[in-house]
Amino acid sequence: MRRDPVKAVLYGVGTMGKLIVPLLTEKGVIVIGAIGGRNHLGEDLGEVCGLERKLHVTVSDDPEEVLSTRSADVAIVSIATFLADMFEPFERCIRNGLNVLTISEEMHYAWGNEPELTAKLDHLARLHGVTIAGSGYTDHFFFGQVAGLAGCCHRIDRIDGVGQDNLEDYGAGVAAMIHVGETVAAFEAAFPKSDGLRTWLQPVADAICVDLGLTPKTVRTSTTPWVEDVDMPCEVLDLTVKAGDVTGRTSQVDVETIQGTHVHFEFRERLYREGETDLNRWSILGYPDVTIENPAPAIATLTAAALVNRIPDVLDAQPGYRAPHQLSRPRYRPYPLHFYVRGDDS
Amino acid sequence: MRRDPVKAVLYGVGTMGKLIVPLLTEKGVIVIGAIGGRNHLGEDLGEVCGLERKLHVTVSDDPEEVLSTRSADVAIVSIATFLADMFEPFERCIRNGLNVLTISEEMHYAWGNEPELTAKLDHLARLHGVTIAGSGYTDHFFFGQVAGLAGCCHRIDRIDGVGQDNLEDYGAGVAAMIHVGETVAAFEAAFPKSDGLRTWLQPVADAICVDLGLTPKTVRTSTTPWVEDVDMPCEVLDLTVKAGDVTGRTSQVDVETIQGTHVHFEFRERLYREGETDLNRWSILGYPDVTIENPAPAIATLTAAALVNRIPDVLDAQPGYRAPHQLSRPRYRPYPLHFYVRGDDS
Repeated sequence: MRRDPVKAVLYGVGTMGKLIVPLLTEKGVIVIGAIGGRNHLGEDLGEVCGLERKLHVTVSDDPEEVLSTRSADVAIVSIATFLADMFEPFERCIRNGLNVLTISEEMHYAWGNEPELTAKLDHLARLHGVTIAGSGYTDHFFFGQVAGLAGCCHRIDRIDGVGQDNLEDYGAGVAAMIHVGETVAAFEAAFPKSDGLRTWLQPVADAICVDLGLTPKTVRTSTTPWVEDVDMPCEVLDLTVKAGDVTGRTSQVDVETIQGTHVHFEFRERLYREGETDLNRWSILGYPDVTIENPAPAIATLTAAALVNRIPDVLDAQPGYRAPHQLSRPRYRPYPLHFYVRGDDS
Repeated sequence: MRRDPVKAVLYGVGTMGKLIVPLLTEKGVIVIGAIGGRNHLGEDLGEVCGLERKLHVTVSDDPEEVLSTRSADVAIVSIATFLADMFEPFERCIRNGLNVLTISEEMHYAWGNEPELTAKLDHLARLHGVTIAGSGYTDHFFFGQVAGLAGCCHRIDRIDGVGQDNLEDYGAGVAAMIHVGETVAAFEAAFPKSDGLRTWLQPVADAICVDLGLTPKTVRTSTTPWVEDVDMPCEVLDLTVKAGDVTGRTSQVDVETIQGTHVHFEFRERLYREGETDLNRWSILGYPDVTIENPAPAIATLTAAALVNRIPDVLDAQPGYRAPHQLSRPRYRPYPLHFYVRGDDS
């Protein structure tokens, strides 16, 4: 069992990357490289992340140089939601012998949405003896605690998940993409009701089905506008949404399985009324019924902290692409996060 | 990987044993023996458990005969809360080559309360190549979901767990033992406030500390009476508790660790006011704060179902006594529960 400090490269210096770096350094992980886009090039990563001290790591736009010349154990990749947008960065990390941990939501369970790209990554990672996996908020809140809860049920007729976040927290780009402030007709023109919309919700349902031994028969997805019967301010777009116009959306996935279990997951991105908070609630209906609820979860911080705690699991895992059910269960890691910990101490 | 049906012996034909048997048979486990006390001797286990069909298994009071003459894989033991009261049955199962799964709350993590008995069992189980473990409600609700939640936190200052159940559900014996209907003075004479009370709460705190890498510095336990300011009916004792007299108790454990994290767990056994329900809520205070809540959990059914789902994990585990952090994470098991499933499919 190795006991060296972990050396990491940050790939993607956006909002999430900046949130992750202080957690890495406080846990004793040595950040030895940072790859950014247009912003912060040439700046010191410590200053970029508000550490009030230099890390003596300069944000670079030359990934090949950073990945090939330093012997990092793991790349922390936070660039985009979908695998197709991140295949090149992933491939580059793997070819340079780095394990990969990413908050890409699709990488939670990528086999269903992207079989070909996932197979390529899995094969490449096995050839290079490294592991690639997704983690973050999804890992425990949409999978671990749900799979564990299922482990306390005798019969499962239906799994019902619902999550919610506040559009004010995610920048003007997301709110505009959802057509906040526009009419329902404009929304429906942009997001037709017909099936086939790819979202990061399917990977959540896929991972649950795989872990529970459920075989999908039909999968339906939809996205519908969220409207309120009062005018709602939208600070992030600096406008007031008129009653009846779009204040957000609900994305849904519904999986019917040959075992008869129905898996439903919906996620709402919306403007909140006074007193509303982020939300995560999963119910299992069957024998018995049981519910798990996380009131007002701090989604971004939980994502960063979960990812950092996952590092030893990924370093310790079998090579290849690993979905969450194929990693050790997530655990808290005290400082210093120096050790490759085995999941099982026999 | 074996693919035989699992063969089980039921050791303890009480309320919980009777709840477990239908789940075993519905999952395809073959029950080939039943060991009882005074009740139901000579009766058919199927009829005893309300199956409306015979299982052709007669409840016996001769454990040695049942355990030594049939080749069961696992004994399902539900007799008592504390290891000291179950050491002989456990030893007998192990000596006869059976794996053991028990709902004994102390067996959740027995090393702290009973180091000598646990070491003996662990050694004996290793010599016989079998595994002994506790499961049930404690497994996920007091451990798995808490440890998983901790895995999403960067820094943990305090862990706060609170559970609650209704004394009306657990028979006259439990309510009388808690001195329900008596005065606070009578309660305090029976349960002195001084430290050292052994409860099944310490094993819950111990398992969390071990998994999170926390080292206890001081451990305090207490039990205090629960009182209401109105008269409360107690059906199970067929009396009315006067306002100010005992309607239940709160048991608590508080662990200070050298890492600075405080672990608090309290469990209330009490008579409910109108509209109150069973409860399980855990909060982690640190960075970030996060909470998990299970509204109105069906404790007895969840215990039985979790135990049955755990069977493949125990059959697949390393020999010895295994606490929950040393087993694969609990999973849902579809019918038929025939296979020894590995935790990791690489």
